[in-house]
Amino acid sequence: MLFHVRMDVKIPHDLPREQAAEILAREKAYSQELQRSGKWRHIWRLAGEYANFSIFDVQDNAELHAILSGLPLFPFMQVTVTPLLRHPSAIREDDS
Amino acid sequence: MLFHVRMDVKIPHDLPREQAAEILAREKAYSQELQRSGKWRHIWRLAGEYANFSIFDVQDNAELHAILSGLPLFPFMQVTVTPLLRHPSAIREDDS
Amino acid sequence: MLFHVRMDVKIPHDLPREQAAEILAREKAYSQELQRSGKWRHIWRLAGEYANFSIFDVQDNAELHAILSGLPLFPFMQVTVTPLLRHPSAIREDDS
Amino acid sequence: MLFHVRMDVKIPHDLPREQAAEILAREKAYSQELQRSGKWRHIWRLAGEYANFSIFDVQDNAELHAILSGLPLFPFMQVTVTPLLRHPSAIREDDS
Amino acid sequence: MLFHVRMDVKIPHDLPREQAAEILAREKAYSQELQRSGKWRHIWRLAGEYANFSIFDVQDNAELHAILSGLPLFPFMQVTVTPLLRHPSAIREDDS
Amino acid sequence: MLFHVRMDVKIPHDLPREQAAEILAREKAYSQELQRSGKWRHIWRLAGEYANFSIFDVQDNAELHAILSGLPLFPFMQVTVTPLLRHPSAIREDDS
Amino acid sequence: MLFHVRMDVKIPHDLPREQAAEILAREKAYSQELQRSGKWRHIWRLAGEYANFSIFDVQDNAELHAILSGLPLFPFMQVTVTPLLRHPSAIREDDS
Amino acid sequence: MLFHVRMDVKIPHDLPREQAAEILAREKAYSQELQRSGKWRHIWRLAGEYANFSIFDVQDNAELHAILSGLPLFPFMQVTVTPLLRHPSAIREDDS
Amino acid sequence: MLFHVRMDVKIPHDLPREQAAEILAREKAYSQELQRSGKWRHIWRLAGEYANFSIFDVQDNAELHAILSGLPLFPFMQVTVTPLLRHPSAIREDDS
Amino acid sequence: MLFHVRMDVKIPHDLPREQAAEILAREKAYSQELQRSGKWRHIWRLAGEYANFSIFDVQDNAELHAILSGLPLFPFMQVTVTPLLRHPSAIREDDS
Repeated sequence: MLFHVRMDVKIPHDLPREQAAEILAREKAYSQELQRSGKWRHIWRLAGEYANFSIFDVQDNAELHAILSGLPLFPFMQVTVTPLLRHPSAIREDDS
Repeated sequence: MLFHVRMDVKIPHDLPREQAAEILAREKAYSQELQRSGKWRHIWRLAGEYANFSIFDVQDNAELHAILSGLPLFPFMQVTVTPLLRHPSAIREDDS
Repeated sequence: MLFHVRMDVKIPHDLPREQAAEILAREKAYSQELQRSGKWRHIWRLAGEYANFSIFDVQDNAELHAILSGLPLFPFMQVTVTPLLRHPSAIREDDS
Repeated sequence: MLFHVRMDVKIPHDLPREQAAEILAREKAYSQELQRSGKWRHIWRLAGEYANFSIFDVQDNAELHAILSGLPLFPFMQVTVTPLLRHPSAIREDDS
Repeated sequence: MLFHVRMDVKIPHDLPREQAAEILAREKAYSQELQRSGKWRHIWRLAGEYANFSIFDVQDNAELHAILSGLPLFPFMQVTVTPLLRHPSAIREDDS
Repeated sequence: MLFHVRMDVKIPHDLPREQAAEILAREKAYSQELQRSGKWRHIWRLAGEYANFSIFDVQDNAELHAILSGLPLFPFMQVTVTPLLRHPSAIREDDS
Repeated sequence: MLFHVRMDVKIPHDLPREQAAEILAREKAYSQELQRSGKWRHIWRLAGEYANFSIFDVQDNAELHAILSGLPLFPFMQVTVTPLLRHPSAIREDDS
Repeated sequence: MLFHVRMDVKIPHDLPREQAAEILAREKAYSQELQRSGKWRHIWRLAGEYANFSIFDVQDNAELHAILSGLPLFPFMQVTVTPLLRHPSAIREDDS
Repeated sequence: MLFHVRMDVKIPHDLPREQAAEILAREKAYSQELQRSGKWRHIWRLAGEYANFSIFDVQDNAELHAILSGLPLFPFMQVTVTPLLRHPSAIREDDS
Repeated sequence: MLFHVRMDVKIPHDLPREQAAEILAREKAYSQELQRSGKWRHIWRLAGEYANFSIFDVQDNAELHAILSGLPLFPFMQVTVTPLLRHPSAIREDDS
């Protein structure tokens, strides 16, 4: 089941630099592992913003939340979730 | 080059029913042809809304606008465009 | 799987009265059938508004959309969907 | 009498970790006691957000406020209250 | 139990004048009867707007909704309801 | 002359506790003195929010501002002022 | 007593042209008479918008509302009122 | 050439008190000098808000910006500029 | 003096087609004449929207308003004006 | 390919003054080098705001993002990107 997620990141300027770097490294590893598993199906950066649009393919709402709330950057993110479904005009096999 | 597009459709209730049906048929054909060409890469419906999120892969802004303004439903749509790029954590070949 | 849905109804004042009455009768029957099936788990009216908050228990996003877009009042509604999950502090068996 | 409440939690990143943990433990106990009493009838988490939708069944506005303002997390929450009533199409006994 | 209600009125310019006048006459009678009964405790006009702030004193949410949805102008109003309670600093007997 | 005022209070979490307590005590005394004088005619708490709706009866805009800007909590408030007048349907003597 | 008023005009495109012209002529006469009386102290157009900022000098809220609701264009306006007072840094005699 | 400017001031609560007082004193002197020169033509306080509406009479956009960005309080202000012109119904000589 | 203008066009769907075509033809001629005169210095379309960003170089606010309110599409536009000035980092001769 | 970018700068008041000055100096050099290269085609200040409108001429979305995210002030900016294209009424050679 697919979900569209927008993540906007806002790291406070008084967060110690090493702490921020460590969080970002964990974030990248976490994201790539989920991408390899097929659960984090797409991720794109928005031009000019510290933000991404992502597509998740998960079993249910609970799994989606477990993934998102486990993001190392989660405390510094605003997250917007939109449930998706196959569009009646879609022709691509895997857009559902 | 990738763009994220949100389309919200609002057909006026006093538009004659046959006219609406004819527009919708043309819209579907138009969309599917662009999907087959590879330019309209993804399309998903938003649960509970008369709206879609789409990903376009076009040469430039002008081509994107030509495609969108050519949509039979364009006069009844609110369209929001966001330019995308490859996310530094992305692992999938074709997410850029 | 649970979803929270807010529906705001706005019937155009120039819609013929009998047509409106007929739609409302179908809406009520449609809603009650889904309530009996267990898919439309809760429905509450918002005091002072022509609107409701509802909880749906469906298999997936696609089933939710099929139900919502099938509402006789759907063309006159603004619908907002929020995916839910069990809260870690919940004690009630069926709140998930 | 039923009320719909949305709670959005935002804990400042410079709040000492032990203080946050202690508040969260009290919050959980407080919530579960009210759930057992029947006053906090439902609680659901919103997927991807540090937020919940809840349904309260209280005697009046004053009791609702006493409960909400007594939440250990109240100083870190944005709270939105909506008074509810039985929907004319509802069939479930206890949705009012 | 007290509720604060804001009503914004927007009468469509193509509503026949006599129909509008008849609705407004019924609205005034309806409001004054409820004021005499003590349920519609206060009503003030907002300077420069076709709107009012009102205070209702009702038994519960259901009674409030019955009163508001029975307003002759209800189909042309946007209504915002806020549940009130006695303020801890209030000294006036009847502000609760 | 009547004014409707909404006050939303937001005390920064890093304000020393004793300082906050001292401000709140002064706020209560200040409010009650103005209520006794008849200038602060009504005050109600909004259920679930650290906010109030109030009605002031003052000579002019300048007196209203002097009262509001003198509130001990003023630096931590967002204040919204709406000028009121007698509603043409009002029957209560003192709603103007 | 001074008030700042913003008026945004939106004339429906299906209003007969002669009717619109007649309303506009009355509006101008009405405004100029009030300007001559000193009650409508200033009026400026906003560049690029069918809107004005005005300053009114009236006895009280009720007189302001009588003037504004008597505007021939009132049914086609959105009006925003802000009560003003002398600024502590003002040096001009008549800015209060 | 006239401009309408709204200034909303928000002084951080952790700014040392003497520093704030010194800025405010400079702000007042700066404002009054510009008022005497005729460039800052009007200034009014908004009732209940730490804000003002002002009218500036300057040569061009650049002069306006030089004045505004030179305000001692500028780093703590949100500023909204609206270019004005003579209203076709205006009768006062100096409202343009 | 430079101004940034955003124009959003919304033509009502029940405007007769020939009338719309005639307005659009006049709009284009009007715009191009002003571009040739140097007053309408830039115009760009926004991808996916019936809107443009433009830069005007005019003598003052009054000339800007005369140009904008004279647009054949003006009754169907929402216009947003922002006064500009030379940026301190600009190197291009004619960006002021 | 052209993009319209709005940048709003907000430097925290507790950022050390020398650090801010150093960032601003780098920002200016960075901007002017990109202007000389032709990629940052226009930059204008908004009157009364710590903000600019800019036009970028880049190869693609990725190049735009590289430029924007490399801005020394990027962590303190809110950035809004709008893809542009040649307007059908444009006559100027280089507005595309």
